[in-house]
Amino acid sequence: MSLLAVGSVALDSVQTPSGTADDVLGGSATYFSYAASFFTHVRLVGVVGEDFPDGHRTLLQARNIDLAGLEVVPGKTFRWRGCYQGAMNSAETLDVQLNCFGCFEPKVPEKFRDSRYIFLANCSPKLQMQVLSQVEKPELVVCDTMNFYIANERDGLVELLGMVDGIVINDAEAVQFIGIHNLVRAGREILAMGPKFVVIKKGEHGSMLMSKHDVFCLPAFPLETVVDPTGAGDSFAGGMMGYLARAGKMDSMTLKRALVHGTIVASFNVEGFSLSKFQCIQLADIDNRVDQFSEMMRF
Amino acid sequence: MSLLAVGSVALDSVQTPSGTADDVLGGSATYFSYAASFFTHVRLVGVVGEDFPDGHRTLLQARNIDLAGLEVVPGKTFRWRGCYQGAMNSAETLDVQLNCFGCFEPKVPEKFRDSRYIFLANCSPKLQMQVLSQVEKPELVVCDTMNFYIANERDGLVELLGMVDGIVINDAEAVQFIGIHNLVRAGREILAMGPKFVVIKKGEHGSMLMSKHDVFCLPAFPLETVVDPTGAGDSFAGGMMGYLARAGKMDSMTLKRALVHGTIVASFNVEGFSLSKFQCIQLADIDNRVDQFSEMMRF
Repeated sequence: MSLLAVGSVALDSVQTPSGTADDVLGGSATYFSYAASFFTHVRLVGVVGEDFPDGHRTLLQARNIDLAGLEVVPGKTFRWRGCYQGAMNSAETLDVQLNCFGCFEPKVPEKFRDSRYIFLANCSPKLQMQVLSQVEKPELVVCDTMNFYIANERDGLVELLGMVDGIVINDAEAVQFIGIHNLVRAGREILAMGPKFVVIKKGEHGSMLMSKHDVFCLPAFPLETVVDPTGAGDSFAGGMMGYLARAGKMDSMTLKRALVHGTIVASFNVEGFSLSKFQCIQLADIDNRVDQFSEMMRF
Repeated sequence: MSLLAVGSVALDSVQTPSGTADDVLGGSATYFSYAASFFTHVRLVGVVGEDFPDGHRTLLQARNIDLAGLEVVPGKTFRWRGCYQGAMNSAETLDVQLNCFGCFEPKVPEKFRDSRYIFLANCSPKLQMQVLSQVEKPELVVCDTMNFYIANERDGLVELLGMVDGIVINDAEAVQFIGIHNLVRAGREILAMGPKFVVIKKGEHGSMLMSKHDVFCLPAFPLETVVDPTGAGDSFAGGMMGYLARAGKMDSMTLKRALVHGTIVASFNVEGFSLSKFQCIQLADIDNRVDQFSEMMRF
């Protein structure tokens, strides 16, 4: 099924205890799309500057990601510089240059408007709603958000939540949004705003899915080496949505298995900088690790 | 199978966002023993002062916990006062009065020496080893520890690890002990010191079991209301060891299911102050929640 991703495409410079990477391909839509591309055909809407390397474009196209919605505008691509320390649970942002992403006005190409699955990566709720006004009747719309919009565009976010089927959100953001430390209760409050399901991402501690009838918790896949956590959340969402788009259904068990696939795809992502680990794996590797995880979780 | 628990018996005063409780029954050996008593016959070794209320003693005896090893000495019982805030992931200690526990010399009664399962609750490694010198050939010895002994009695702790089958340890303590933030690697380093398995407790984020062949991660049971996390770790260990003692075997699947039972027993414990929730449940309630958890974890 056709899966549309709208969000940032960036050039990241990252320092972690494992090393550094400069001007590597990053951005929420990038990680999401690449992760989802293991499962389904992905369409990307985003914006880059004239400095965006052809090689990065080729990398995405090689995964059959349709870049017809990747606008190229005068000026520079969004740049982020950050570092991770210790348990690497959160990034310290050292520098942000929004560049062309600061004026991003998502334009969904005509041929993308029939997309059945939509992921609205972390972005202003206004822009996320603009995307929804440009697509026909999708089967499933999932959004992400972040602390900045929770603090500064809360009303817009609440309005958006009445228009989506699901949201993926960090644990700290869920607490910030609802003002309750208990994640089960915070999740229930978010559910009451409209979406059919809420996925709370807990980094190295896994994730939690909540719907009207289900609460489902998953640990992360245990890894001895985490090289770079950048993009883990978007890779998780990409694996989850890619799996759902391929499955073409949304029952409780399929949603659970989508979370499992998101967990496993994210576990590969953090084993390298940027997309480096993703470039070394295939769907069979994901399936193998899903089997390993399923066996681990059997008791 | 006979399960011996050696550790503190205390009078706790606790403040949490749910309320306060003063001079309630607490201590590592208390929580452990009560939790384990749902599964097996428990023998307790500890020390209290003359102020220890008869009612508390009756409460433990009502669960068939053998108090022949609970020494009563002149003076006062160990007192701890603490509070929890926000996500309640860790307690702030407001006051500690070691009282009689400061001179604790564990004495294993003659009739306890044939205990097959031994839990050495958080205590000085020297005392933990003293206990081992007083028991015959146990089948399974598991210890706990804490930041103070990691910092101040490291050599003793390392020596102890060569004498036990398993250790339960907090995530933060594992990181402190090994100096590595990655828990899988920290766990492997602890395994290399001798024990057959390491259980890393992650509070609201669940737990991780590591043995030579297995890595097994479990989320916590999702709760909407956590009243008081005091004793969660000891209740977890009690549920785990009680299950193992009842099972009478130690294969990989039994260990996993022991962690599940520890998880569920701990989930009941945190729903009330002190032992208040434990006093309202029976083994059938634990079994029901284990079933609910197993169903949740099926994917």
